[in-house]
Amino acid sequence: MSDQETIAQLSFDDLKPGEQFKLGSYQPTREEVIDFASRYDPQPFHLDDAAAAANPVFGRLSASGWHSAMIMHLLSYRFWKARGLRGIAGLGVDGIRWHAPVYPGDLLDGTIEVVEARRSESKADRGIAKFRITLRNQHGAQVAEMVTAALMAV
Amino acid sequence: MSDQETIAQLSFDDLKPGEQFKLGSYQPTREEVIDFASRYDPQPFHLDDAAAAANPVFGRLSASGWHSAMIMHLLSYRFWKARGLRGIAGLGVDGIRWHAPVYPGDLLDGTIEVVEARRSESKADRGIAKFRITLRNQHGAQVAEMVTAALMAV
Repeated sequence: MSDQETIAQLSFDDLKPGEQFKLGSYQPTREEVIDFASRYDPQPFHLDDAAAAANPVFGRLSASGWHSAMIMHLLSYRFWKARGLRGIAGLGVDGIRWHAPVYPGDLLDGTIEVVEARRSESKADRGIAKFRITLRNQHGAQVAEMVTAALMAV
Repeated sequence: MSDQETIAQLSFDDLKPGEQFKLGSYQPTREEVIDFASRYDPQPFHLDDAAAAANPVFGRLSASGWHSAMIMHLLSYRFWKARGLRGIAGLGVDGIRWHAPVYPGDLLDGTIEVVEARRSESKADRGIAKFRITLRNQHGAQVAEMVTAALMAV
């Protein structure tokens, strides 16, 4: 049996404000943390153990906060795809907050909540949805959250 | 002469609300656009020409909006580094807006504006700054903007 046969499918009209879904987990390796930072956020404390040890916030090598944001986005995309929902375009991000460091090897669990979902008034084939995504580590601490808006296929 | 001898250095106290700086440019290649999307935003219209042609917003292969955000962040980091300013940790993002598609080969120009900058009241070695970063393409169209907050060394 394929995944698509075992995972309940959702349509845009099933998205109700306040509803929450578990997104599954993601465990960034040290190699991925350094690779991401070297490409897009090459601050020394995301690349080098000695620089990280000298940083008063992180204390040791930690992932870029942008890496956490991308993990939240990727988990969300995988979730919607498995349920048959399709994005058309991202509209924007209302905010991202980094509450605690993410360290290589942390086991991160995502949750998504529907903030708002409405069909477009002008185009019958699409709707606008807003989601709050949060990420917790293996100690239960919330490490990051963000609110995103997307145009989705109806 | 090294870059550091030719670029005027800035200190945290030089950051004045309303002041703008040019960040320089970035030209994402088709290979980089597909590589970024395949890692963190694998929606078919960011990976595949046929899927992109069928997308009503993009029309052809375009970069992930998250890729634009990372380009804004990277240009900002390079700018501060060249001027001797040092981040301690990101605090968050107040918002990201994607105004127009970014296509492979677009020549993107960044601008950064100081929204707010104040020294920490409790820790003398740091300050909190908020910046608005915008990205324009070679046609002068604004493609993305974001407002970020960071803890910086004073």
